[in-house]
Amino acid sequence: MTIMHDSSNPFPETVDRIFTHCRMATMAKGTYSIMENAALAVYGKKIAWIGPMDALPETLGTTWVTDCQNLWILPGFVDCHTHLIWAGSRAKEFEMRLAGASYAEIAKAGGGIVSTVRATRAASENTLFDLAAGRMAHLLTQGITTVEIKSGYGLDLESELKMLAVAGRLQKSCPQQVEATFLGAHALPPEFSDRPDDYIRHVTEAMLPGVKDQGIATAVDVFCENIAFSREQTRQVFEKALDAGFAIKLHAEQLSDSDGTALAAQLGALSCDHLEYLSLKGVQKMAAHDTVAVLLPGAFYYLRETRVPPVDSLRLMNVPIAVSTDLNPGSSPVHSMTPVLNMACLLFGLTCEQALAGATIHAAKALGLADCKGSLAPGKDADLVIWDVDTPADLCYPVGITPVKMVVIGGKTAYTRM
Amino acid sequence: MTIMHDSSNPFPETVDRIFTHCRMATMAKGTYSIMENAALAVYGKKIAWIGPMDALPETLGTTWVTDCQNLWILPGFVDCHTHLIWAGSRAKEFEMRLAGASYAEIAKAGGGIVSTVRATRAASENTLFDLAAGRMAHLLTQGITTVEIKSGYGLDLESELKMLAVAGRLQKSCPQQVEATFLGAHALPPEFSDRPDDYIRHVTEAMLPGVKDQGIATAVDVFCENIAFSREQTRQVFEKALDAGFAIKLHAEQLSDSDGTALAAQLGALSCDHLEYLSLKGVQKMAAHDTVAVLLPGAFYYLRETRVPPVDSLRLMNVPIAVSTDLNPGSSPVHSMTPVLNMACLLFGLTCEQALAGATIHAAKALGLADCKGSLAPGKDADLVIWDVDTPADLCYPVGITPVKMVVIGGKTAYTRM
Repeated sequence: MTIMHDSSNPFPETVDRIFTHCRMATMAKGTYSIMENAALAVYGKKIAWIGPMDALPETLGTTWVTDCQNLWILPGFVDCHTHLIWAGSRAKEFEMRLAGASYAEIAKAGGGIVSTVRATRAASENTLFDLAAGRMAHLLTQGITTVEIKSGYGLDLESELKMLAVAGRLQKSCPQQVEATFLGAHALPPEFSDRPDDYIRHVTEAMLPGVKDQGIATAVDVFCENIAFSREQTRQVFEKALDAGFAIKLHAEQLSDSDGTALAAQLGALSCDHLEYLSLKGVQKMAAHDTVAVLLPGAFYYLRETRVPPVDSLRLMNVPIAVSTDLNPGSSPVHSMTPVLNMACLLFGLTCEQALAGATIHAAKALGLADCKGSLAPGKDADLVIWDVDTPADLCYPVGITPVKMVVIGGKTAYTRM
Repeated sequence: MTIMHDSSNPFPETVDRIFTHCRMATMAKGTYSIMENAALAVYGKKIAWIGPMDALPETLGTTWVTDCQNLWILPGFVDCHTHLIWAGSRAKEFEMRLAGASYAEIAKAGGGIVSTVRATRAASENTLFDLAAGRMAHLLTQGITTVEIKSGYGLDLESELKMLAVAGRLQKSCPQQVEATFLGAHALPPEFSDRPDDYIRHVTEAMLPGVKDQGIATAVDVFCENIAFSREQTRQVFEKALDAGFAIKLHAEQLSDSDGTALAAQLGALSCDHLEYLSLKGVQKMAAHDTVAVLLPGAFYYLRETRVPPVDSLRLMNVPIAVSTDLNPGSSPVHSMTPVLNMACLLFGLTCEQALAGATIHAAKALGLADCKGSLAPGKDADLVIWDVDTPADLCYPVGITPVKMVVIGGKTAYTRM
């Protein structure tokens, strides 16, 4: 192809694919950063160039051109907090609760997280993989191009490794990038009833080395809460995890203020997640250590919580705010990002721009992937979604419709909607 | 085909199509009424037979058989309250509000229902039709097989007739059944500012005869509320509407108790809709007159309301409860029934069974279609959805996924998902 050179923003000599006639919200620096009448070129798996249509070479020859017909391109959604590998269903439990069953009755019928642990332990790796791959395929249709997945329904070495092995197979077989996180310290398994310290010792001494040897997980997460593990137990897991070379992240201050956030921030955690009860001190610690605040409005909605995270303080202190589905079978069976954007706006008061930055650039940072994911810029992975909308706010405003036109991952078309 | 006769539930001599190996929640009488290992036969547009697999004739010959592989069949959703014909967008207004704009600033920027009226008046019938047909096509993918559509963004004779003409074109061109409702008394148009009585006279004396002549709408609706029309103005519209042979229904007690429900019930309204502020007296009137209570949790959610409809009283008095999207560009941009089921359960405390009855059998009654829609029974229209779920509660529990496998309307496959 013939190339015209523009020294200020030169079109590259070699490109594989060009998206033309688009509007773009690049989400660079956490703002819309809108470009109209624009084009985007891909080389290999990367974005090679972004610029105005009139800077395109006059002759594109046989280059693969996708005319976006003035539709919007945004970076693919990064879902930075999910528990999407599980077996069993909690729908019956939801139904029992609405019909007036007490917690004791639901527990007697085998409900709660224990039921998910039981079903996940009992399921074969193949069964778990099929279930999870189906969920991944659906997330793809919703414009989600990177997915973090936690273990934590095994709660014994074998079952936790089985979950992470499934994450490893998803990494190989799904078009999305998968980031696997070891969450052995998610809940106390029945075998360790009333012996949380013994379980934490098991997590650090038996599980963590096994997870390290397996080589799939890159991060370690803990559920620090009065119904889960203490700040001191959290510290023990984090110190061993850091020694072993893992990144760390935390489920923190969801139901009460355990001050886990300050600990995690000081230890260099990528993110602290949930945060409804986060104190001003916690906000300051996050700001000081550049920790990402991951808000999970789906869990807030399903649990009928009333206390919202301190969004204004997080904004004032310039803490990067991410949002995520928290996809899980119990407290947040949310299988799409657009309802999360909507709830983040309506329930937590984020602006549309903040919610979209939360599902892209800040979510990438929460996974340590800010250099390659979450915004449209030369050198970043060509993970993008073409949306059939009039304005980016249309991704946050309606419910029950996700107007995806095309999902591109690493420059390849991963999904299109007729 | 060879027929085996079973005198108690004989398989019909002639059928066009059979669905085999399904589980069914027929929703007859407002309960699940579950049948397992069942089959359903269609003749023409109607359900000809429902029964157990082992009552099927041994030889089905060349009959068109769809093996449901043990998936669930439920009646197609009946969306009994929508405003799905509109032009313009309110997403920017949503964005401004979240970014801290005052109501005055939004009004100055042309926001609110006035903006929808302006855009709808300005749009050609063809433009309105294209927009509405796109929304209808999406509702089909969500398992909605009957749709009520209100006018009410025209607010002058010509524009109201244009909206109803669009509804008439949708009736002819979409697979779903469309029920059109005239809602001239939706809001006070700018031309009649401060002259609501004059506008109501215009509605009854100029618009209503025009709508009658046009022959598309079957019902007349009024928004009875302190920000819309009074009980006395509502009565005037209803009396003229009944004289002209229309069914009546009411937007009532959404933001305050105007006691419109009692009036509507006494006059034989099909339904009263919204009902957050419904009094016990209103509940009793609805019960006495068998008026359907249509709950609209989407509007409750978007308006951040805190007062929920008196669900317990409605249940105790056996008032049939329907649920609906209230699909509209301002207070309920909800483009699917499954999120409505979810919100009806989580926000209003309906059980899954009540929510599903609300979107089927009771919604059909709210449209005067209980004889042909809303449940699976011989003689009713063959409007059904095959769902890829384990249990009907799976339609109410998750967010962001609507696991439709196939939508059948009048016995014909109207949509399938790969």
